[in-house]
Amino acid sequence: MNDFIYDIPTKVYFGKDQLCHLGEELKKFGKRVLLTYGGGSIKRTGLYDAVMKELKNADLEVYELSGIEPNPRVESVRQGAKICKEKDIDVLLAVGGGSTIDATKWMAAAALVEHDAWDFFSKWAPVKDALPIVTILTLSATGSEMDTAGVISNPETQDKIGRLERPLLPRVSFLDPTNTYTVSKYQTACGSADILSHIIETYFTTEKDLYMLDTVMEGLMKTVIKYTPIALENPTDYEARANLMWASSWAINGFTYGGKKKAWSCHPMEHQLSAVYDITHGLGLAILTPRWLKYCLDETNVYKYVQFGVNVFDIDKNLPDFEIAFLAIDRLADFLFNKCALDDTFTKVGIKEEDFSAMAYKACGGKTVGGFKPLTQQDIEKIYKMCL
Amino acid sequence: MNDFIYDIPTKVYFGKDQLCHLGEELKKFGKRVLLTYGGGSIKRTGLYDAVMKELKNADLEVYELSGIEPNPRVESVRQGAKICKEKDIDVLLAVGGGSTIDATKWMAAAALVEHDAWDFFSKWAPVKDALPIVTILTLSATGSEMDTAGVISNPETQDKIGRLERPLLPRVSFLDPTNTYTVSKYQTACGSADILSHIIETYFTTEKDLYMLDTVMEGLMKTVIKYTPIALENPTDYEARANLMWASSWAINGFTYGGKKKAWSCHPMEHQLSAVYDITHGLGLAILTPRWLKYCLDETNVYKYVQFGVNVFDIDKNLPDFEIAFLAIDRLADFLFNKCALDDTFTKVGIKEEDFSAMAYKACGGKTVGGFKPLTQQDIEKIYKMCL
Repeated sequence: MNDFIYDIPTKVYFGKDQLCHLGEELKKFGKRVLLTYGGGSIKRTGLYDAVMKELKNADLEVYELSGIEPNPRVESVRQGAKICKEKDIDVLLAVGGGSTIDATKWMAAAALVEHDAWDFFSKWAPVKDALPIVTILTLSATGSEMDTAGVISNPETQDKIGRLERPLLPRVSFLDPTNTYTVSKYQTACGSADILSHIIETYFTTEKDLYMLDTVMEGLMKTVIKYTPIALENPTDYEARANLMWASSWAINGFTYGGKKKAWSCHPMEHQLSAVYDITHGLGLAILTPRWLKYCLDETNVYKYVQFGVNVFDIDKNLPDFEIAFLAIDRLADFLFNKCALDDTFTKVGIKEEDFSAMAYKACGGKTVGGFKPLTQQDIEKIYKMCL
Repeated sequence: MNDFIYDIPTKVYFGKDQLCHLGEELKKFGKRVLLTYGGGSIKRTGLYDAVMKELKNADLEVYELSGIEPNPRVESVRQGAKICKEKDIDVLLAVGGGSTIDATKWMAAAALVEHDAWDFFSKWAPVKDALPIVTILTLSATGSEMDTAGVISNPETQDKIGRLERPLLPRVSFLDPTNTYTVSKYQTACGSADILSHIIETYFTTEKDLYMLDTVMEGLMKTVIKYTPIALENPTDYEARANLMWASSWAINGFTYGGKKKAWSCHPMEHQLSAVYDITHGLGLAILTPRWLKYCLDETNVYKYVQFGVNVFDIDKNLPDFEIAFLAIDRLADFLFNKCALDDTFTKVGIKEEDFSAMAYKACGGKTVGGFKPLTQQDIEKIYKMCL
């Protein structure tokens, strides 16, 4: 069991009547705010007007950057950083899902350096500081609202690269489940697949770790599995949306890692898919995860699948270990592809075998990736083929 | 489901090789440190020397206050506050269990006011600020290392009063499971009873709340129930001590409350016992909790007992509801009184019926206490009698 540091000071206003605190929180950081958002759905839902009203009441000076893409691009980061510098921005307010928040995090970092934003990824330029970030979450998925991570795409180089840096942690996040009422069935399902993947990638480890954290992760997985179908059936079910929203934050804010070395497998494999094909991150993860679990299963790690099957899917613990393991993978696939109605193969989403070799190379950087079972380029190609 | 604010910025160094970070953390707050501890067990275990070495290496100016009592007294708080004022202390370092940390919290608050420390409890004087507090935990029990609460006793008035105040939250806590290796079987058992009580009092509610938080609480309860017997059998089992230690913090740091109104029942009932008889807090809670659960059980809330029995004790979900409920209470009593070997009646620990009326009056302040089922003085007296 490794030592670890727990340090997640993000303040969260959770619930449906919390936006009244937005002004007071932003004012702690200064007067000039850069408001960032995506394609404009927040204008249709009325959230934009509600936010602007609070900003006006708080007498803040507001600048805007809209149009941040899904799989956000470095060009948006450059634009945001430019505004921050030109307008001497004090605090960034991201209103959206993981893409908007991720892009905003890197704007906040790029605003304080002279070099190009892509240098953070191509040259791993240091992130010594960032402007303060406040978020209003509109999609339960990435957990970006309470973590230090941000993933940026560069279409020119077909790269999609994530990085965890302490200064990127949001200072304050507003989590109002009603802001996810208008999320489509498809995006809700992809979001849940993403949440589940964050937990599964942390849970499936051969490192010795705290049992307590395993029980927490099992609870989070049960929460996602219980409430996603309810949210799909009734998009305005507050209880379902609230449970998914809070689970999304805790799936990846660092609490569940404990002393584990956080070795990700499906995420780097997926990042290559969405870098090349621009598919939704959660969809790529959904297709990959059951195959990855099947590929990694062996005598030495079957105990973890048994624990997963018994504690999360309530499978009879008296069955033989491998039977429980296969049943658990089947139940996960059933959740993702039947209950969530996500496409279950690369073929269906148009991902082609001819790209596997190059994507697999990038996923592991020519070495290995993943801690549960270290995966080589060849392993990753095999897993990609299982997804056809 | 109520709205809530999540805001727990305590930084935690968890593990056995983290003390090297003590100096750097303390220096962030200044140069003059008040080191507080209890009866001196930290000198026997070598922890005192290890701490002093780090403080010396960091070139800090150290003052000391030892002898803080179990059920810490207001007189200790007064002494600590006096030193803080006289020596212009920058940061307080509490090394010990909940008693030492609680007392230190109130020293940190009392250091910044002119009035007597007891005014915080007798007159509810405001707590606008406090000196920064750093803790090194030596007993897994109260959760004081990561919460805003502190309970102080006044032997003159036979009062034991707790209060939650934001400025009392420790800034940094060092949680090294090996520092609990020397905790006696009895204190380990009392600590686990305390942890379990914090979870049970939050879990047993009729308020609508997040399912996700229920699953987390069930995981924490399973953790305590699994690892306490292991720690009692082998006091130097790192895994057991680590699980109990991290569970103690998360049982009561506020995460599990969500939007609940946090209505405590057994804690106020117990505070009267330890105020009058100076018994160990966890022991009083252990005796009270199964009786309180039995007393409150009815048709309207049996579903919660069923959830508890099935998810925590793995009781067959096909049994009739009330059978599951009674079995669950029996299993809890078996854990506390057989597995933990704690005394199971007031009679055994010398608590007398003649004091019930006065203690019950104080427990509910002459009104009612508790949210699961509001308890009057008469209810509390009946529960006390069930404990004889």
